Amino acid sequence: MQVSPADSVIGFIGLGVMGKSMAGHILSAGYRLNVFNRTRSKADELVERGAVWHDSVGELARNSDVVITIVGYPKDVEELYLAADGIVAGCRSGSFLIDMTTSRPSLARRIHEAAKRRSAHSLDAPVSGGDIGARDGRLSIMVGGEEEDLQAVLPVLRTMGSNITLQGGPGAGQHTKLCNQIAIASTMIGLCEALSYAQKAGLSLDLVLQAMGAGAAQSSALNNLGPRILKGDFAPGFYVRHFIKDMNIAIEEASDMGLDPRGLKLAKQLYEELAREPGGEELGTQGLFKLFARELSRS
Amino acid sequence: MQVSPADSVIGFIGLGVMGKSMAGHILSAGYRLNVFNRTRSKADELVERGAVWHDSVGELARNSDVVITIVGYPKDVEELYLAADGIVAGCRSGSFLIDMTTSRPSLARRIHEAAKRRSAHSLDAPVSGGDIGARDGRLSIMVGGEEEDLQAVLPVLRTMGSNITLQGGPGAGQHTKLCNQIAIASTMIGLCEALSYAQKAGLSLDLVLQAMGAGAAQSSALNNLGPRILKGDFAPGFYVRHFIKDMNIAIEEASDMGLDPRGLKLAKQLYEELAREPGGEELGTQGLFKLFARELSRS
Repeated sequence: MQVSPADSVIGFIGLGVMGKSMAGHILSAGYRLNVFNRTRSKADELVERGAVWHDSVGELARNSDVVITIVGYPKDVEELYLAADGIVAGCRSGSFLIDMTTSRPSLARRIHEAAKRRSAHSLDAPVSGGDIGARDGRLSIMVGGEEEDLQAVLPVLRTMGSNITLQGGPGAGQHTKLCNQIAIASTMIGLCEALSYAQKAGLSLDLVLQAMGAGAAQSSALNNLGPRILKGDFAPGFYVRHFIKDMNIAIEEASDMGLDPRGLKLAKQLYEELAREPGGEELGTQGLFKLFARELSRS
Repeated sequence: MQVSPADSVIGFIGLGVMGKSMAGHILSAGYRLNVFNRTRSKADELVERGAVWHDSVGELARNSDVVITIVGYPKDVEELYLAADGIVAGCRSGSFLIDMTTSRPSLARRIHEAAKRRSAHSLDAPVSGGDIGARDGRLSIMVGGEEEDLQAVLPVLRTMGSNITLQGGPGAGQHTKLCNQIAIASTMIGLCEALSYAQKAGLSLDLVLQAMGAGAAQSSALNNLGPRILKGDFAPGFYVRHFIKDMNIAIEEASDMGLDPRGLKLAKQLYEELAREPGGEELGTQGLFKLFARELSRS
């Protein structure tokens, strides 16, 4: 059996840059939508479009067949799901709980166990594709959990993502997302170093992006964030502070497995330098270029 | 005026993985082709198809309207062009000399000056896109030199590349290619670290590549080299030893400009570790994964 707008109410928690677009797609697909967010005003637009506001996480869970969350940090996820008045305590028997936050694989497994004891189904389903992917409903969704649970909620995930892959059991979605962040971390260093070199060498950054984008240096980061860097647009599609959180989790997990990801550690160090600048944490990840540009102006 | 198969003879020096494909496209477009290569046997296939072998660089230059080179190292480029019996000494007045090797910007400027004194036109025009880009005639060609010289030789460059950009005066093509290599260097670290994490976490590398390729971690490296890594195919599209050469030039140039490219330096260090393994230098750049896999098996 699959969820459908006719018989399933969706609850959505976390209306940040990504979540707001994602919840909007669910509403557009005809689902009844319950919403909750720490900052209530971020729900206004969705409520105007017909979403129903709930004053607590527990209340939202009690009134939803599927609960979707995308928030900031693992501690937020843990509290949302596992607190006494949280999602697991409040959820309906047989309901589906989908955490789309990038979080710890071990936490995903704990939530899965807790949900099972309440006869609910849990999936970890973090996403990649940034603000543009979320806006266009073309996210890559990396799922950990049971195959039949994924099949059941696929219609609602399809409103948000164009590439949905079951990566394995509980936690495997999170592990895959960490792989994704590891790949991006060093790619961002390369992109920003390349553009700072180009600037220092007196090249046209536009022409350099064009040439790199047509060859082996092409990347999603180059295509999507390169032009923002050139325009001086450092607004967050994805926040520096959230990226640092992801890198911290990945480094811990990698270390636990006996790996020494030197590129990832360097990226974390550089992003932490950026985060120590005034306003640095609130930039988008392309803000790394500012760190390199600052070094440029010093030399 | 532009070169055309009717009135221009092309000379091609350097028939490695890339050069052989590129020279083949020129021949296919109907140009008469002179060839020279350090290892003569690599010219056999082209000679069978109608190319004319020359026993020396000088002789090839004396018999060509356009001379194209793509060899290994800056010292090879310097000798080819500036030796007493080299290309500049032998070239026809009004001829075009195009170096497509990734080499030093300062050497490109010296060749440009030397060519000018012989009334010849020189362009630096390194390429990106790897063995597949060369095979398909879809390279990104990054050109430094005079606009009118590029216009003159555009028909022959178009047989090899689909994206041809004039980046500035002599040396600007090389600077742009170094930007390209800087971006790739850290991207390769990210890709190999991500796949080694995936392997250690017990994920399906196929599914992880699929998920990453659909999101913000997508890159040309992931698309083209990821599948080769999964197949255990470490054959060179682009040699580790040539990549180290490029990174060395980029680090020197960046340092001269007062930059400290930490990602690039880490990449060079990792690739040098790989090069110290038996056969490591002769792998393709995706061989970096073997270094990470080796660390995996140790831990």
